[in-house]
Order: sequence, then C-alpha cells, then structure tokens
Amino acid sequence: MSEPERRSRRGKERRKRESFPRSAAIKPLVNKLPFTEVLSEEGVEIIHRAAMRLLKETGMLIINYPPALETFRQNGAKVDGEMVWIDEETLMHFVRQAPPGFTQLARNPANHVFIGGRHIVFAPVYGPPFVGDLDRGRRQATLEDFHNFAKLTYLASNLHHAGGTLVEPNDIEVRERHLDMLLAHITLSDKAFMGSVTHADNARDTVTMSEIVFGAEAMQANPATISLINASSPLRFDDRMFGALEVYARARQGILVTPFIIAGAMSPSTLAATLAQQNAEALFGICYAQMLNPGVPCIYGSFLANIDMKSGAPCFGTPEDTLALYAGAQMARYYRLPFRSGGNFTASRIPDAQAGYESAGTIWPTVQAGTNFVLHAAGWLEGGLISGYEKFVLDLEMLGIVARFVEGISLSEEDFAWDAYQEVGPGNHFLGAQHTMRHYDTAFYQHVVFSMDNYEKWVEEGSQDAYKRANALWKRMLRDYEAPPLDEAIAEELNVFVEQRRAELRTGKPRTEWKR
Amino acid sequence: MSEPERRSRRGKERRKRESFPRSAAIKPLVNKLPFTEVLSEEGVEIIHRAAMRLLKETGMLIINYPPALETFRQNGAKVDGEMVWIDEETLMHFVRQAPPGFTQLARNPANHVFIGGRHIVFAPVYGPPFVGDLDRGRRQATLEDFHNFAKLTYLASNLHHAGGTLVEPNDIEVRERHLDMLLAHITLSDKAFMGSVTHADNARDTVTMSEIVFGAEAMQANPATISLINASSPLRFDDRMFGALEVYARARQGILVTPFIIAGAMSPSTLAATLAQQNAEALFGICYAQMLNPGVPCIYGSFLANIDMKSGAPCFGTPEDTLALYAGAQMARYYRLPFRSGGNFTASRIPDAQAGYESAGTIWPTVQAGTNFVLHAAGWLEGGLISGYEKFVLDLEMLGIVARFVEGISLSEEDFAWDAYQEVGPGNHFLGAQHTMRHYDTAFYQHVVFSMDNYEKWVEEGSQDAYKRANALWKRMLRDYEAPPLDEAIAEELNVFVEQRRAELRTGKPRTEWKR
Repeated sequence: MSEPERRSRRGKERRKRESFPRSAAIKPLVNKLPFTEVLSEEGVEIIHRAAMRLLKETGMLIINYPPALETFRQNGAKVDGEMVWIDEETLMHFVRQAPPGFTQLARNPANHVFIGGRHIVFAPVYGPPFVGDLDRGRRQATLEDFHNFAKLTYLASNLHHAGGTLVEPNDIEVRERHLDMLLAHITLSDKAFMGSVTHADNARDTVTMSEIVFGAEAMQANPATISLINASSPLRFDDRMFGALEVYARARQGILVTPFIIAGAMSPSTLAATLAQQNAEALFGICYAQMLNPGVPCIYGSFLANIDMKSGAPCFGTPEDTLALYAGAQMARYYRLPFRSGGNFTASRIPDAQAGYESAGTIWPTVQAGTNFVLHAAGWLEGGLISGYEKFVLDLEMLGIVARFVEGISLSEEDFAWDAYQEVGPGNHFLGAQHTMRHYDTAFYQHVVFSMDNYEKWVEEGSQDAYKRANALWKRMLRDYEAPPLDEAIAEELNVFVEQRRAELRTGKPRTEWKR
Repeated sequence: MSEPERRSRRGKERRKRESFPRSAAIKPLVNKLPFTEVLSEEGVEIIHRAAMRLLKETGMLIINYPPALETFRQNGAKVDGEMVWIDEETLMHFVRQAPPGFTQLARNPANHVFIGGRHIVFAPVYGPPFVGDLDRGRRQATLEDFHNFAKLTYLASNLHHAGGTLVEPNDIEVRERHLDMLLAHITLSDKAFMGSVTHADNARDTVTMSEIVFGAEAMQANPATISLINASSPLRFDDRMFGALEVYARARQGILVTPFIIAGAMSPSTLAATLAQQNAEALFGICYAQMLNPGVPCIYGSFLANIDMKSGAPCFGTPEDTLALYAGAQMARYYRLPFRSGGNFTASRIPDAQAGYESAGTIWPTVQAGTNFVLHAAGWLEGGLISGYEKFVLDLEMLGIVARFVEGISLSEEDFAWDAYQEVGPGNHFLGAQHTMRHYDTAFYQHVVFSMDNYEKWVEEGSQDAYKRANALWKRMLRDYEAPPLDEAIAEELNVFVEQRRAELRTGKPRTEWKR
C-alpha cells in the first residue's frame, strides 16, 4: 500500500474516533521523570522544624470531640481544654507508622489503584453545589447530575478513580445524600471510590456498603475506600471530620488528611508560614489516625490556594499555589507519605481562556511535583463551586497530554531513526518514510476535543470554540454510556441496606449495625 | 487606621489599576529555582553522540551559498557539491568559542538584557502574516498593526525585549518592510530589538541603523541586535539565512540559530531522532558563525512542534513538545550556550479554553526548563499565523505569573509569621493580622485581566469571558501609550538613511554603504 493510500485510510479510521478511548481497565500511570523541586534539602528541614514548633508551642484545637483529646492525652500529648500540644518525638513516632503507599480496591480488580511511589491517580472534581454547561449556565446540582458525572468518569480512561462527591445532589435530603452517592459509585462505575465524611454514621454506612461489595476481610488487607478529612485551618479539627476519621481508621480504610487553606485568610500571607502550618495540620491528622490503628493507610494532603487581596476571593493557578504545590510534594516525600494535591483548578466561571491558562497552570505542576492522588483532575470551575460538563471533557484532554508526558523520552536505536535519514536525506520530508509508518500510531498524542484545524476549515465548520466542541462531546459520551455488570446478589443487598438506612434516617432512629 | 478602613482604601487604589504596571525600566528576570530535566546525564550524551554521527555521516546541505561551503572547507570540513560533513573535534572546536552569555544593548540603557545563565528574556510573537481581534476576526496584518504591537510590547513590563517581525506589514512592499519595522522598533520603543534576516542587504541595513543609534564601537563590545537564523530542516541551510548570518557574524551581532522543526515532517516522528537532528542543525549554524568571527554571541535555538498525524497540521502544547523543550534546554546547557525556545503557543485560532490550556502548557515548561530567550511569549495564535490582540494581553498575565514563580519561596524568620500565630491563634483568620498588613502589597500575584469575581458579580458585570475582558484592556493600553523620547539628530539620520535605501530599493540600485 502506498503512503497516500495508507494515510487516507487511517485518516478515515481516525475521524471516527470522536471521543476519548474507552478501555475495560485503567492503565496505571507511572511518572518516569525526575520530579521538579523548589526547596533545597535545607529548606525542607526548615519547614519541618517550623511545623514542629507550631505543634509544640502554638498547639492544635480539636473542637467538640473529647474522644480525640483523650486519645492524644493517652499517647503522650499535652492537653488542656480543647487544645493539644505535641512534641516532635511523639508525633513522628506515630507518623512513621503510616505506610509509604497502598493499593485501593476497585469493584473491577483491573481497576485497583496503587497510591504512592511514582504512581499518579487522577480523580474527578469533588464537592461543587452547582453544575454548569453551555446550554443552561450555572444551576443547582441534582442527583441526575451526579449520575452523569459518575458515568463520564467511568468512561474516561484517564480518570483512574471514581472520586467522591462529584456534585452535591441538592434534590436529595442532606441526611440521605451519602447513600445515593455511594449507590451511584458502586452501580454506575467499577472504579475505586471515596467515602462519606459528613457524619460518623455516614462513614459507618460507607464501610458497610463497601463490605457488602468487597467483603470485610479483603478490606483489612487493602482499603476499599479513601476519605477526605479536612482540617478547619488554622490549626483546628472538628468533631465531624475527626469523627469520620476515627470510623475509617478503625476500619483500616484509607484516610486523606488535607488542610484546606486559602492563604492570607486561613494562614498567614507568606508561603513559608503557610507551608509550615499545612505540614503541622496534615501530620497531626495522620498522627491521630496512627494512634487509633497503627499502619492504617494515610495520604498527606494539600489544598492550598490564596486570596485575592483586592476582593478576598480565592485565586487559582497562581505562582504562589504552584510553588506551594511543589513544596508540599517535597514535604510529603520527606515523611515517605503518599501526596495528594492539585487538579485542573480555575477561578473562572466558564471554560474560557482564563480557565485554560489556570487549569493547565495547575495540572502540569501537579504531575511534575510527583503528586500521587489528584482530586479535582476534571470538571472544576469557579473555585470548586461548579462541576462543569464542558470543563470536564476539556480537562480530560489535559490528562491525556500529561499522561503521555510522564513516560519521558525513549532513546533506543530505533528511536534515532537511522534508516529514515538514509531514506530521506537532507532537505526532504519524513512523511512517507518507512520509519514514520512504523511509528504512525504511537508517535504523537492524538487530540480529541482540542482542534488543530486551520482558520479556513474552522470557519467552514462553524467557528466553534473549545467550549462548544466540548458541549457536543460530553453529550455523545453520555449517549454511549453502558453500565458495567454488577452481581445481582450484591445489588440486592445494597438496596435492602440502603432502604433500611433511609427508613432509620427519616424516622430519626439510631443506626443499627448491618448483619450479613 | 483600622483594618477594614485600610482594606477599603487599598481596595479603591487597587481597582484603579486596570492595566499592567508600567515601569521606566525592565526588571531583569532571574530564575532562582532548580531547572526541570527529563534526560539523564547519559541521555544527554547519547543525543550528543547521535548528533555528531548525523553531522559526520549524513551531512548538512547548504543550498545556493558557495561562500559558506568554502568557509567550511577551509576550516577542515569535508565538502562535496553542496554537502558538508564535519567531525566532532572540528565542530566542537568552533562551538566552544561562543560565549555562555552576553548582554544585548537597548536604546534605553536601563533596558539592556543579559541573555544566558539563569536569566529569562521574554519577547513578543514573531512572524504572523495575520492579526486577529474580537471585533474584526482574522485579517491581513498592516504596518498600523505592527505599530500597535510595538506599542503594546513597549508598555508591557513583563516583556523585556521588543522582538522582531511582530506581524508582517502586508501593506508595505516586501523589499521595504524591514526598514519600516526597524524604524518602528527604534522610535516607538526603547527596548532591545531583532534584526532582519530576509536578505543579506536587509541585515546590512539592520547593522547600519543600529550603528546610527548605538555607535559602531559600542556594538563591537556588545551586540545591539540579535537575529533569527532558521535551519530549513532537515539538515539544510540556505543562502538567505546563511547570507544574513554572515553579515551579523562579521558585525559581531547576536545570532539565534534555530532549527524550525515540525516533527513527523521535517524530522522523524520519534523524539530521540528529532532532538539529535535539532542539536546537529543548531550546532552547525553556531559553528559557522564562530568560523566567521570567533566569540560572536550565539544562542542555541529550538522551535519544535509536531504534526497531527490525522490532518498533518502542526500541534502545540503537546506532551512531545514539552519533553523536547526540557531536553533542548539540557542540550544547550551541556554546550554552555544560551537557550531559546518556547512561548505561549497554541494551535487555536482564537483565545478560547484550548488556547489557554496549550499556552500555559508551553510557557510553564519554557520557564522551568531554564530557557534564556523566549520568543513568542505574547500574542501567538493559530500556530503562529495570527498575532492576536486579546491573546497578547492574556499572555502578559501568564508572564506576570511565571515571573513571580521563578523567585521561589523565601524562608526568613519574618516569613514564618510567628507573631501572627500569637496574635491570631488556632481557629481564627489572619485577614486583619499585623503580619498580613505588613505583607499586604507583595504577598500574592495580583491579576490584571484574569477575574476572580464570583458568578453573581460576574453576571452582574455582563458575563464577560476572558476574550472580552482582554479586548477592553489592549484598547486601553493603546490609548495610554506615549512614545519614549529619542534624540532628534538620531531620528533625523535614521530618516535620511531610510529614504536613501527606499530610493535604492525602488529603483533597483545596488546598496551604498552609509557614511556617517
């Protein structure tokens, strides 16, 4: 077959690929490149020492949760009222018991994810009360939206993890939302998912539903959930978060301790202090988990933005955020803990140029920093208030791009294309060379929603910007969605459990343990 | 003054700042951070050896320019017809004579730029035949557009360099364009600028006009121009580029040797081969310059994109481009040469989300790679076919962001904010803390065109996307423009020279040397 024929045939095949490639199992993403660092070894030590000073001298506040105060007191910390002071030796004794990495189970064993080392796990946006799309603008999110984002996440081969609160399903009573969200994650997808942290009982429900799917024994060896425990910065945890943490720690489920810091408000406006504070808060939460159950898998988390000094609004994709991201990863590595941070962040309300600049300005450093778990990797708009449909698929393109990047540069003899230089010679083009044909399919990243069309073709096809192209794409993906199979007995048991819990919650009865 | 008063007063001051800060002199940008690298030391050596093999075995083609063939022959290369083969020892003997960095003069001495070391110099987009804006879409560029971009560049404190062919002034005869462009750079701005490479005589005109402004003697010590010499890849230079290179080398003016490679077409589709070829071409051009005038300042350039295998169109912001950018910088450092690459690249035709993702995806690695000279740092659209007015000011925002980033994290005692923790304590906010007040003005990067407004405020103010906000900004900047002063005698001499040359060019007379 001649070269033009070959190109034309392939061109037709390619044009059919109008969506992101689907695969039955995720492909683990491993960063083969050196990590980017912004702190010297001495700088890391200085921040470590400052964090130890904060924990020992300034102290941490634990509000409305006496059991945690008691646990800290029993393990050697100084406790007075709701304040806790802990010294380096005591703290580090417990922190060191957290494993450097762990495998989280997924319903489809091919989708288990390793969190730690050089692995990168991408998970979708978490927490927005709103959704947004080109057709209807911003509006309150519903359970239908939650289902849609669960389906899109399942379909996205570059999302390794199903995430957690994809949107707040506002049409469901607050007390029952966690049940609907867990049910959706388990039935609409077969990827690993996150647990509920809104109440200790909701954490218990998460564990019970996971046990129905995975079995209690398997979950002792490897966690089937990870859950997001935020500090109420500065230097504070509350009963809600520590209550959920306790349930998960005792059940040996993964715990993602993340100080949620908007620097300038919830921390000082200088990066050094903010990093020391973040470090103190993350280690304090991990220390508590290890006191409760030594060896329970923990992730050192960072959610760190800064305020706009003009308006007080949070900013994303800033130079300060980027520096903090790199530095945070270095701190986590210093403690040999998996690191969570970053995503495709933006302050913008729609997927415009600003959203693109800011998102790429976050996801590139996220990957280059050596981040292991990346929440908010797709869909984030308006500082996390909106799950954006178009933004979601645009972010998927970025995830495809960075996934190729971390593979690095292959330097085999074949890669040097000696035969192509003999065949082509100086001054000619390589389009038809045998070497080019051999590498045709894998040579370059192939875009799905970004368009390389020239101006004339672009105008001819309706002058669509990326927002508009993405609008067509997520609709096509949802149309093509098919649910992964689920064992009928498991589905039945889940439904019975959920109905029992709904009844209890609606009537205000205490939670009964599920007997299998 | 109480905290709320202070915030409110400052808020008003800030709201007045609706444009990028202007300063009489550029602030040199120095990267204090470790560079990101993607090749091991061994990887660098492997690419070096492959490049040496290409130069020795495959050879380089120099078309229509016998003087260069003769120069190579006299200096020990093997020449046959228009082909040149050169061995490592001969090549490196000359390459090693290029200085590791140099200062380029600007008309305003406060705007001299050092190119090399850890310095970063940002210059605007180069070469587009079209301009684009929100009001009128894409159209042929004119001299008025050239003047507009020269003014915008002059006004932008984060552009350290005036650049060269900001747009093609299509309403001017091709043979005279270089005169109008040089005149514009010299009169509308006082930053360092680039020379013409479209003909050896145009290079001579560049040198003459620079001598009128800077004096011939000063230009022997430090170049007053740098000029972009492209290889016609693969492995080929032509009379136009080598003719201009020769003029600049003999005049001891800066030479930016840049292989222009769209991988998959002008190089093989594998990165290893592409990097080896780029390396061979860049070093070959630098070697030629050093043969002509040892010690002439040279920059190792890289313009490396890849084709879309579907359509053949060039792609930007791809993982392959990013890997090549980092690797290219490593190669230049290996030879102790200043490095040029990157910019705010995109294939998109308008500043939409794709343009943002791709541009940020290029400018972040550009800076993190340790690039010294960054052409196309602002204004680039549609693979370099369009100078975009809105894109230009959006890119300026990114340059402000990365300029703050490379300063790194300060770790002084003051930065750890010990007094703030005493003042605020766990659980409270830092907004009114004395420490926050002390750092109020410098704490965080302040955005100009990116908006942090929440959805409600954004809707209230007209739901403007970044494209629209940028449209208002560049118009405001042009309204506020005032030309920097220029010595009347110099202005007069420039005009007389330009009129003499126009007359010669229009009548087809040979160029007469300018006698001062």
